[in-house]
Amino acid sequence: MALTIQTTPKKDGFRMPAEFESHKSTWLMWPDRTDIYPYGAKAVQKSYVELAAIISKFEQVNVCVSKSQFQNARVKLPENVRVMEMSYDGGWIRDTGPTFLTNDKGTIRGVDWEFNSWGEQGYFPWDQDNLVAQKVLEIENIDRYKCNLVLEGGSLNTDGQGTLLITEESVINPNRNPSLSKFEIEELLTQYLNVKKIIWLEKGIYLDEAGGHIDGLCCFLKPQVIALTWTEDKNDPQYEISRNAYDILSHAKDSKGNKLEIVKMHQPDPCYITKEESAWIDHIEGTAPRDEGDRLPATYINFYFANNSIIFPTFNDKFDKINIEKLKEIYPERQIMPIFSRSILLGGGNIHCMTQQQPKA
Amino acid sequence: MALTIQTTPKKDGFRMPAEFESHKSTWLMWPDRTDIYPYGAKAVQKSYVELAAIISKFEQVNVCVSKSQFQNARVKLPENVRVMEMSYDGGWIRDTGPTFLTNDKGTIRGVDWEFNSWGEQGYFPWDQDNLVAQKVLEIENIDRYKCNLVLEGGSLNTDGQGTLLITEESVINPNRNPSLSKFEIEELLTQYLNVKKIIWLEKGIYLDEAGGHIDGLCCFLKPQVIALTWTEDKNDPQYEISRNAYDILSHAKDSKGNKLEIVKMHQPDPCYITKEESAWIDHIEGTAPRDEGDRLPATYINFYFANNSIIFPTFNDKFDKINIEKLKEIYPERQIMPIFSRSILLGGGNIHCMTQQQPKA
Repeated sequence: MALTIQTTPKKDGFRMPAEFESHKSTWLMWPDRTDIYPYGAKAVQKSYVELAAIISKFEQVNVCVSKSQFQNARVKLPENVRVMEMSYDGGWIRDTGPTFLTNDKGTIRGVDWEFNSWGEQGYFPWDQDNLVAQKVLEIENIDRYKCNLVLEGGSLNTDGQGTLLITEESVINPNRNPSLSKFEIEELLTQYLNVKKIIWLEKGIYLDEAGGHIDGLCCFLKPQVIALTWTEDKNDPQYEISRNAYDILSHAKDSKGNKLEIVKMHQPDPCYITKEESAWIDHIEGTAPRDEGDRLPATYINFYFANNSIIFPTFNDKFDKINIEKLKEIYPERQIMPIFSRSILLGGGNIHCMTQQQPKA
Repeated sequence: MALTIQTTPKKDGFRMPAEFESHKSTWLMWPDRTDIYPYGAKAVQKSYVELAAIISKFEQVNVCVSKSQFQNARVKLPENVRVMEMSYDGGWIRDTGPTFLTNDKGTIRGVDWEFNSWGEQGYFPWDQDNLVAQKVLEIENIDRYKCNLVLEGGSLNTDGQGTLLITEESVINPNRNPSLSKFEIEELLTQYLNVKKIIWLEKGIYLDEAGGHIDGLCCFLKPQVIALTWTEDKNDPQYEISRNAYDILSHAKDSKGNKLEIVKMHQPDPCYITKEESAWIDHIEGTAPRDEGDRLPATYINFYFANNSIIFPTFNDKFDKINIEKLKEIYPERQIMPIFSRSILLGGGNIHCMTQQQPKA
């Protein structure tokens, strides 16, 4: 019985938990777009098998797969992974899936936001992506709140204690919500996520295809502790973005009035699409081109918390190890699981963009 | 974690329960074939909404829907019905869904048979139908036995106590299992359903499009009590079929050595496709034609046991009431829920063909 509830989570006492709280499962979507991924999407599918196998050591993994790829995905994925048919356009379930909520009684509900392919800047059409959240909730028999705010899950980061990190670029944007004021958007976020304090950053990372998502820029590691992508290279456009975010965060307080500790995670050296990679992509009208030399939005911040672990993207870069060590200091009890993320990154996102946590009831 | 198990249900202590035992839920598939159903399948969809609404009063209802019909079905169906996307060719989940099994510890497993569109006599292709059982089990996280016998769920009826009713026409048939002997088929049925006694009938009802399924001819009402479709009209080809089944059943014993009581349920007057109905069907090569005057396989036996109820097909026939009264005598504690089944019957089956019970754990 998955009902659509007409009140709001705040009124009903539901909140968005932090990603580092306990999960019931992780949702993935099997990528198959040959106009986004080179090599007929076979390289990224191989990375998905690795990703699913690693996460499934720590919690249940659910993979949604298109009709045409169902049998292939079922054979390739580990047997303990749950594979289900679902149509979609893009496949980034972080952005199209529901935002799961919990209450004090252990009930789970989900928010189904409007999705418009990142301000109509991604692929066309996106009608199937806009149904993903509802379909996931139906499968799980979880009640749904429908919110008409155009928003993607990658725009949201919370400490689970009432503080929300979000960028203006990804929400207060004429390509997402032209008719809503910042005040109205804050009211919707407050009602649907039940947060008490919203910290607005200006922009997401440089060249983020999703249009400025928080989940490449910064995230809560723990309450009061935030990881922020960083560079010391003043010629890199990312420099100003990170610096600006640092300034805002260092003056901000969380929902309880605490100051925030900022952990700088230096970005990898810039990554560019190679000639070969570009040549192995189907070039189709309506999809953003992926040309040789285009810079990819590489960031370590796009990691994922699974139960007792952190699934961490690596780039064959000197900062891989440095940043893993930083996380180990903060989370000695979690296993840090590195995944070389090149084939995933070519799609424009990384591990966090392709996962969606379902909290434990 | 839906694993594929390499042993057999018999070895693991699993059995097929009777349909009249407790259910967790009922599975349906939203019909959308305009070459099988007239009026763009809109009339049969209306009947499905009625069917789902009635069953959902007694137990959870799960409806699988094609991509193109997902939104329409979700809006039309009652909110307490769970709606999930799934590709399929035909939509008769009785025949394509898993056969659910239980053990003494309350664990549920499923058998995934081979499906070939009723001996390649139905529509073409049937590749998606052959994946339905696996997809249902994945959604439910239920472990699976894969059996290479070509078999449809509509071929099986059991008392849940080790007795199986089945027709030779639907299983021992060169269009289903040309390389298997009756002995080999019996061994597979024994291993995968964990039955001790197989009662072989010869044929299903006259003009059964599924090719002689048991579920139009006869079924267990209770252990030792069987309902059998009947006619007194010697000119009707059904007369000989029912008489032959009666002879076999009246001499048969169940798995415990008990004799069987036979309840005759007189069939409705013959039903024929009208000129208008035929005209409103898309006529497509590869699909069995549905012409004016074609007789439909009308039978009361194709009813469905839901929890505390019987969902009963009616035909605006004088025997509607007579047969309902018979069931009320046998099952005074169950609610008999009649559904006028014309629009469903036009597809070639009835309520039992479009349902699949998932037993309670």
